[in-house]
Amino acid sequence: MKAALRPGDAAFANVEKVNAELFTLTYGAVVRQLLTDHEDVDDVNKQLDSMGYNIGIRLIDEFLAKSNSAKCADFRETADVIAKVGFKMFLGVSPTVANWSPDGKECSLLMDDNPLVDFVELPDTCQGLSYCSILCGVLRGALEMISMRTEVRIVKDMLKGDDVYEIRMRLIETVPEELPYKDDE
Amino acid sequence: MKAALRPGDAAFANVEKVNAELFTLTYGAVVRQLLTDHEDVDDVNKQLDSMGYNIGIRLIDEFLAKSNSAKCADFRETADVIAKVGFKMFLGVSPTVANWSPDGKECSLLMDDNPLVDFVELPDTCQGLSYCSILCGVLRGALEMISMRTEVRIVKDMLKGDDVYEIRMRLIETVPEELPYKDDE
Repeated sequence: MKAALRPGDAAFANVEKVNAELFTLTYGAVVRQLLTDHEDVDDVNKQLDSMGYNIGIRLIDEFLAKSNSAKCADFRETADVIAKVGFKMFLGVSPTVANWSPDGKECSLLMDDNPLVDFVELPDTCQGLSYCSILCGVLRGALEMISMRTEVRIVKDMLKGDDVYEIRMRLIETVPEELPYKDDE
Repeated sequence: MKAALRPGDAAFANVEKVNAELFTLTYGAVVRQLLTDHEDVDDVNKQLDSMGYNIGIRLIDEFLAKSNSAKCADFRETADVIAKVGFKMFLGVSPTVANWSPDGKECSLLMDDNPLVDFVELPDTCQGLSYCSILCGVLRGALEMISMRTEVRIVKDMLKGDDVYEIRMRLIETVPEELPYKDDE
């Protein structure tokens, strides 16, 4: 008997894919370009986050169309689906959800395997760079499209010597659902 | 009896992958960012080409490691392998090689399916933009690492109303092979 695929694996199996190394190198080229065009590293972090946001508000459509996920009851369930289905479906990896705040409004995604950073080393001059900020923006943008206004930031970064990547998500408020754009545009 | 996989399919099956839509949206965010940071569209085209070059000189390693391709005898064979194995392995599509010059030094890669441009429309203000220039850079960079100095440009672009994407490659000269970087760097 063949074991049933977990939801994230099934969704990942069903989507069009490209080579992960091409993606990693393309993302690396983007970061390098931003570092050339913007003097301030904080500025680069903000640009990466904002690029991610623009990706997230569109990526959510693909997620909803292909993931077969039911509507989540609360932020706790949402975080679980993000980790097990969302990350798996787009990047092929599944972070662990951990470090919940007592009020259930704040949690962390932990991962030690991150396709964005394969072969990446931060030069000494870029220690302030939050290389994976784009992920924060993607999460923030995607969640906003399903009514959740959040703050997302990276609190542990293996590129800076931490033993894991930790992305901290905080639910600020649940807002009325809005469509990302009109169909006739 | 199961049909044997073609070399490109086999190579694509064996590499790590990410979601193609994530890649398309990330690339779109890159182009938008460059348009914000650089006033001149020609400048953006050059930046995309140069980003591609930096990707190509590294991507060739993954290609050589995973494609199982034998050394090509000439530019004609190289173009064939690029189309059938290289494109397939990285983007999941296979262009047609066509329009050879009589001296065998110039040819075109034709494709109507291009993962870079899914859902992309050029606004009127960006008609000079060569959205897929990055592909030219990737080809130029990768070929340089295997001794071939080339000129690569896009001559037909579906985003501009052409019926196909046509990438024109011209072999300028064959140069002594150089390693892209030292192992101990």
